[in-house]
Amino acid sequence: MIVALAGGVGAARFLQGLIKLVPEEKLTVIVNTGDDIEFFGLHISPDIDIIMYTLAGIVDETKGWGIRGDTFHCLEMLEKYGYETWFMLGDKDLATHIHRTYLLKRGFRLSEVTQRLCEKLGLKLKILPMTDQKFATIIKTDKGKMHFQEYLVKRKAVDKVLGVEFEGVGAEPAPDVLDSILNSEAIIMCPSNPIVSIGTILSLKGVKQALKESKAKKVAISPIVGGSPIKGPADKLMEGLGIEVSAYGVASIYKDFLDVFVIDHVDAGLKDKIEKDFGIQVVVTNTIMKTLEDKIQLAKVVLKSIGIGV
Amino acid sequence: MIVALAGGVGAARFLQGLIKLVPEEKLTVIVNTGDDIEFFGLHISPDIDIIMYTLAGIVDETKGWGIRGDTFHCLEMLEKYGYETWFMLGDKDLATHIHRTYLLKRGFRLSEVTQRLCEKLGLKLKILPMTDQKFATIIKTDKGKMHFQEYLVKRKAVDKVLGVEFEGVGAEPAPDVLDSILNSEAIIMCPSNPIVSIGTILSLKGVKQALKESKAKKVAISPIVGGSPIKGPADKLMEGLGIEVSAYGVASIYKDFLDVFVIDHVDAGLKDKIEKDFGIQVVVTNTIMKTLEDKIQLAKVVLKSIGIGV
Repeated sequence: MIVALAGGVGAARFLQGLIKLVPEEKLTVIVNTGDDIEFFGLHISPDIDIIMYTLAGIVDETKGWGIRGDTFHCLEMLEKYGYETWFMLGDKDLATHIHRTYLLKRGFRLSEVTQRLCEKLGLKLKILPMTDQKFATIIKTDKGKMHFQEYLVKRKAVDKVLGVEFEGVGAEPAPDVLDSILNSEAIIMCPSNPIVSIGTILSLKGVKQALKESKAKKVAISPIVGGSPIKGPADKLMEGLGIEVSAYGVASIYKDFLDVFVIDHVDAGLKDKIEKDFGIQVVVTNTIMKTLEDKIQLAKVVLKSIGIGV
Repeated sequence: MIVALAGGVGAARFLQGLIKLVPEEKLTVIVNTGDDIEFFGLHISPDIDIIMYTLAGIVDETKGWGIRGDTFHCLEMLEKYGYETWFMLGDKDLATHIHRTYLLKRGFRLSEVTQRLCEKLGLKLKILPMTDQKFATIIKTDKGKMHFQEYLVKRKAVDKVLGVEFEGVGAEPAPDVLDSILNSEAIIMCPSNPIVSIGTILSLKGVKQALKESKAKKVAISPIVGGSPIKGPADKLMEGLGIEVSAYGVASIYKDFLDVFVIDHVDAGLKDKIEKDFGIQVVVTNTIMKTLEDKIQLAKVVLKSIGIGV
């Protein structure tokens, strides 16, 4: 079994390559739910949806989220009814949120709901929300505290980040999260935001300990290339927390449990420093995923780096 | 003040004519909620929506329900998730149900929710759901008991009707329902199904009594023309209850409180019998509403019949 810790778009792209090399059935993806938010009474799990839609082949590849060819007619009408509509929810996409909300209301756990969604979307891998409990990533900015989605989507990450708070830190991981980590042969930290995507998962009760205890080989792919994130506000968040915005900074977050760190050619100069300071083996390759070939190639290097031949 | 008791499409068409003659502010419409149903956790109030959409000028005039030019992308996806989708809910239309469900969940009453929807849709008349309590029209058929929508929409009214049951008979009318009836100068029974649209309203606590006590002139338009309903399954329901499928049969349902009954030229032969048997004054006119002119003309005759000149 291979376990991946994942955020949204970056992770989804990497996993697209991975499932070409590893049977889906052997893969468990633990997904960040710190971005989860409610709009008009519907429960939205953006990262879970991005992963599901991408691996089911229905994602809008250009945007990286949402469903390809979706329309926004319901949202237009909701705007007329007075709702804020800065979070773009397509008509087909809304079916997912309606379904999820309905099942949650009927007493199912988010992990059960996610499993049902995956089955209907024809996915054979296991997608686990990191927790079934309430969890929210709050960004402290010079304009006040706000939900991560408000910071990122509504205000387009323009505010100065003063800190990050997790409402729900220490929450129980969803069933199977700790077991998957403890009983896998490999654990991959996808190229996701180390603070608000992977960091949320690490903040859950027992997760860091399980990562340390697990005999699995642990590898991460740096989402920071040449001092900037491929996508998203990782730089501003790392800066706001006083962490160096570089692959080195990312490695410093994972140093307690990581065996191998995969960085881009651009950052080859950091290899020695990371290996020396943190005792982590560094592999240098192309980490920019534009084509499916790029994704498969990166997945190949990652698997090879922890001794899995494909 | 004029009060109208209403079902869905037939009532909406008549009211389109009426609001051309009467200031919207002077009109209160009490709407059947026996057709209300829940799908995927969303509360649907079909008759309220038909009335609102029609009077707001956004209804799909061809179908008589739903929003003009709406798409069904969310429903297509919900079908993939395993839901029954025989009840056609468009993407824009879903915004209404999402909004309603959200407000109900937050503790608002259906009447408050309806008022908010009306405001957002720019309506100045008052639309009152007949009750804020749970109410469902159940059809007893040779295939078993089923919700009215299942009988009508899913099974297309093919089953033999053995009876009609109201789950919620004797429920409290929504606030203002009884007051509106008691304090109006005219009460119009729209050309709606006398069993499952107007009959539900009549079954509520105190409504029949208020109709009898009210000093308002009370007029009804027959939804049965030449022995058939203009739309819907009124004939099968009346037959199933042993009521004559004719304007005479409709009059027999309203006889305890009605002053004037408006029937179609086709049924002119029933005038004397209705007047004689029930002591109701009968007015004969064209009741088939194809154009806006037809609707206005019918509304004019109805108002004139109870002494309101326009």
